[in-house]
This record gives sequence, C-alpha cells and structure tokens, in this order.
Amino acid sequence: MRIRVHVTPRRGVLDPQGQAVAHGLSNLGFSGLGEVRVGKVVDLELTSESDPEAALATARKMASQLLANEVVEDFSVEVLG
Amino acid sequence: MRIRVHVTPRRGVLDPQGQAVAHGLSNLGFSGLGEVRVGKVVDLELTSESDPEAALATARKMASQLLANEVVEDFSVEVLG
Repeated sequence: MRIRVHVTPRRGVLDPQGQAVAHGLSNLGFSGLGEVRVGKVVDLELTSESDPEAALATARKMASQLLANEVVEDFSVEVLG
Repeated sequence: MRIRVHVTPRRGVLDPQGQAVAHGLSNLGFSGLGEVRVGKVVDLELTSESDPEAALATARKMASQLLANEVVEDFSVEVLG
C-alpha cells in the first residue's frame, strides 16, 4: 500500500525557502503571487499493510517520530493506492 | 487560487534522501517498508488567477522554469481551492 505524507511549515512559522521561491518566480516575471510555502512530500511503500486505516495509522506514527518536526511543521497522510 | 505543485524524483533516479528516511524508519523499528521517495511540495497562492485551468497552466510554467529540474524530477500540479 502506497502512502503519501505531506510535511509543511506551520502557519505563522517563517518559511525562508518559500520566500526564496516567491522571489525567484517574481524575478522570472511571474506576477500576482501571494504566499508561497515549501514543504516535503514523502511517498512510502508499506508492504506489510493491506488495510488503509492501519497503513495511515502507521504513516502518522512515522511522520510524528521522524518525518515531521511538529514544533514547526504540520503533516497530513493520504493513501495513494 | 491556491495551487499545489509536487516535485518528485523521477523513477530510476537515485534518491539518497529517500534511502536515508527508509534507513531511519527501520532503525526506529518500522518494518515492511518498501521504496521511500522524498520530494518537495510547493503551495502557491495565485492572486491574479480565478480560472482553475489558467492557474494550473501558470503553475506548470513555474514548475518547469524554476521549481523542478526536469532532467531528474517529475512534477504535478493540482488546485487546492
């Protein structure tokens, strides 16, 4: 079962990478750009889980233990199929 | 209009960050882990676009010009709302 974990900076936390991307895009001539936030996406293949709920629970545990720093980052999990 | 861009390493391209995450997870006691791929997610607020198709087209242009290196990375775009 493939699971996707999104890790994004929490609202209110400074995101220098997002600011750099916004700056780069405006230098390239893109206008009308509001907030840009950059996060990580982790695609996991969980070979031992066939139940979607169990797989999501495992992925949440992985995210809170390793993938995300919950002081400054939020995460969400979804089943890819 | 909020657009989400996923940038992931192309299939077949070595992903050392994914390998490090897989190793870290197995050190934490998680088993049954197949391939792990780590990519980026960029959330963009496009204030000047109200048409979803136009916003997606702009985001695709941004991705191919700045956000993704298409030699080694794939990207996909979706409307967040």
